[in-house]
Amino acid sequence: MAPDSPDVSRTRLDTYVDRYAARTQGMTASEIRALFAVASRPEVVSLAGGMPNISGLPLDVVGAAIADLVTQRGPVALQYSSGQGDPTLREQICEVMALEGIEAHPDDVVVTVGSQQAVDLVTRVFCDPGDVVICEAPSYVGALGVFKAFQCQVVHAEMDADGLVPDALRQAIAATRAAGKTIKFLYTIPSFHNPAGVTMSAPRRAEILDICRSEGVLILEDNPYGLLGFDGEPMRALRADEAEGVIYLGSFSKTFSPGLRVGWALAPHAVREKLVLAQESATLCPPAFNQMAVSAYLQAHDWQGQVKQLREMYRERRDAMIEALHDLMPAACRWNVPHGGFFVWMSLPPGIDAKAMLPRAVTARVAYVPGTAFFADGFGSGSIRLSFCYPTPERIREGVRRLAGVLEEEMELRATFGATGGHALRLGELPRSGYDGPGTDLS
Amino acid sequence: MAPDSPDVSRTRLDTYVDRYAARTQGMTASEIRALFAVASRPEVVSLAGGMPNISGLPLDVVGAAIADLVTQRGPVALQYSSGQGDPTLREQICEVMALEGIEAHPDDVVVTVGSQQAVDLVTRVFCDPGDVVICEAPSYVGALGVFKAFQCQVVHAEMDADGLVPDALRQAIAATRAAGKTIKFLYTIPSFHNPAGVTMSAPRRAEILDICRSEGVLILEDNPYGLLGFDGEPMRALRADEAEGVIYLGSFSKTFSPGLRVGWALAPHAVREKLVLAQESATLCPPAFNQMAVSAYLQAHDWQGQVKQLREMYRERRDAMIEALHDLMPAACRWNVPHGGFFVWMSLPPGIDAKAMLPRAVTARVAYVPGTAFFADGFGSGSIRLSFCYPTPERIREGVRRLAGVLEEEMELRATFGATGGHALRLGELPRSGYDGPGTDLS
Repeated sequence: MAPDSPDVSRTRLDTYVDRYAARTQGMTASEIRALFAVASRPEVVSLAGGMPNISGLPLDVVGAAIADLVTQRGPVALQYSSGQGDPTLREQICEVMALEGIEAHPDDVVVTVGSQQAVDLVTRVFCDPGDVVICEAPSYVGALGVFKAFQCQVVHAEMDADGLVPDALRQAIAATRAAGKTIKFLYTIPSFHNPAGVTMSAPRRAEILDICRSEGVLILEDNPYGLLGFDGEPMRALRADEAEGVIYLGSFSKTFSPGLRVGWALAPHAVREKLVLAQESATLCPPAFNQMAVSAYLQAHDWQGQVKQLREMYRERRDAMIEALHDLMPAACRWNVPHGGFFVWMSLPPGIDAKAMLPRAVTARVAYVPGTAFFADGFGSGSIRLSFCYPTPERIREGVRRLAGVLEEEMELRATFGATGGHALRLGELPRSGYDGPGTDLS
Repeated sequence: MAPDSPDVSRTRLDTYVDRYAARTQGMTASEIRALFAVASRPEVVSLAGGMPNISGLPLDVVGAAIADLVTQRGPVALQYSSGQGDPTLREQICEVMALEGIEAHPDDVVVTVGSQQAVDLVTRVFCDPGDVVICEAPSYVGALGVFKAFQCQVVHAEMDADGLVPDALRQAIAATRAAGKTIKFLYTIPSFHNPAGVTMSAPRRAEILDICRSEGVLILEDNPYGLLGFDGEPMRALRADEAEGVIYLGSFSKTFSPGLRVGWALAPHAVREKLVLAQESATLCPPAFNQMAVSAYLQAHDWQGQVKQLREMYRERRDAMIEALHDLMPAACRWNVPHGGFFVWMSLPPGIDAKAMLPRAVTARVAYVPGTAFFADGFGSGSIRLSFCYPTPERIREGVRRLAGVLEEEMELRATFGATGGHALRLGELPRSGYDGPGTDLS
């Protein structure tokens, strides 16, 4: 514990290794995190990250609104505020949710530091170690990280082209309960799923709600992409048809700015009270400044017009990706066509391991996320997530071309040597799933 | 679970009452929180809250810096960033800490959503249910809330006019270990203590460090007020003399703006890695915008000159409070004279209950925080925290005058009826401690 050798500490063993909480065993660096450093090199086409493209934001409007906020309302915007969040913003949030058929009261909304924090607070409030959370297969890597960090067990239920499969959900519930375990909630992303690209159809939504009502399973509906559909009006949220059995999570990260970290949870009243207490413990209050900045932007700007532009930009990129996949990918690849959001889920030709292939892809200057990142149980090695949100259509096509080249080589190697590459590049010996995700037969 | 009766849900019993995690039993509304609504009425002089006075901030400078940030660096400031925090800000944080004798590397700093989140993340990383955290008696209410929420047991150790008492710490360590419990860390606020107003002397710091080194107890040093001393140079931080055994927490909430929620933890390298993973799970990343705003402010403005002005303003208010206490309080009251920070700790005349008296004080248009808020074990009912940070010197004197009036009446009632007020106003039957805090014999 001597303070005189700071450089040595870099290489020293962790002196605290025996002192951490048990939950830290579930806190490991995500595969996406390790990729960020690589994918940010300019020569690499990153089809990996989920960063929204904010280049179209009216920076002059935002800058002026924020400067006014400081000079005219600085003493409030720069001060502590309430744990629940700014009342005006909570009213505006209810107006945003009304676009998806939700009738809600601002008093049932809690503002969070991005909707990631909402997942964290809900899990903190509901989950003891060993409790089960049912998730789609695959599911959002950031939510899986929270569930692991709170020592939950994740049980996956399959999806098809219409989203979560009712029988798979019923089976997951029955099997979990038969094993004597407690289900705390179903975590679902019904619209423009991350990473699966699938959207739960309207009849399917009714069916899933029915199952959860009759089984008494709370639903955690995560909906960051709901307003980013490419065809017609937004779908009705699950929460629009069930107030008491659903906690709904929303975010301004995809419709405005992720750098302000403003998300929210809409919850049944008693749960909302618990979430505010958890928020006060976690941060005292979310930043007043950011909330008032979002509020001012919503008021000062035609934000819905802006979202319409975003939808058009993302649709163009989706089209570019699907066209390139169609033109360039080996015949054995399968993918779906998302109707909104940021992601395409692609299954690789049989026998190719997504994780083992990644270093070669990066050498060929293209990055993706291996499917294993989106399963809590090591499955998914035969699939990858491709995101079309950030690169331009030209770069997307170039990225797909590079990836197709890597795949062709992999298949050739495999045909010649019967395995994926040399030993040095085999990054893991994970079980290969028979099921690797939904809707990859839609191409 | 029918969605058709949203109003009824307000009065309905909590249908989730059996489903919450065990940790929610430790999540209760703090006494300070309940007071905020009352204390914000303009006719009440609040000596309760710990809100910094930010009226002196150069809003034109801040507004211009932030507007530039949006228009010139918007694509970065409004985007996702790293879980560890902005590298430039982390360098500046090291310069800030150097003012207290700390030599640190930016790579060992994690930016947090206020230093409250730093307490939360450290506790999350270290504490399993039942683990012990040693805290000063009294201690910061917000930290006690985190320890409770993570199901820790808090063991208090007494302070005197020089801060935490070495023998009390030794005794707390020995007794805890004798009981077979695990101590995860000592939580301490060495400078300008909240709520006790006391500062740990230099020799005492060396002694406390020695004890923790030899006993192998990690120190969590919370130092939001360190630069707000009224006399001379800042004290050397504990971390300045011990790098491996101390996690240091800092904040821009008191030296710049609490509404941006930018704090940090400086930790031994291996711990820092765990904290970043915990941060990624909690929020993905703290808001880039806020970090760059603080960074721009530190660069664009003579922030140390600003802090000097803050010190002078707070010293003037401290003087106003001490003078008013001296002139107006009943002889049986005792308080200390803080040399920095925001708070005076006052012990009431024997037999007067701080919580029971509070409603009468608010009726007399003055608010304070009862001492019980700062103990995990119900002690502290004979003391109160008085803050001098927010009201003007004139309002402070008026608040003290009102409080003195309430106290005189209480003492008179007590002399006549032998107890504190009527039954209707007795808010609790908490144990009355023989020890109620430090340094109250310094008046």
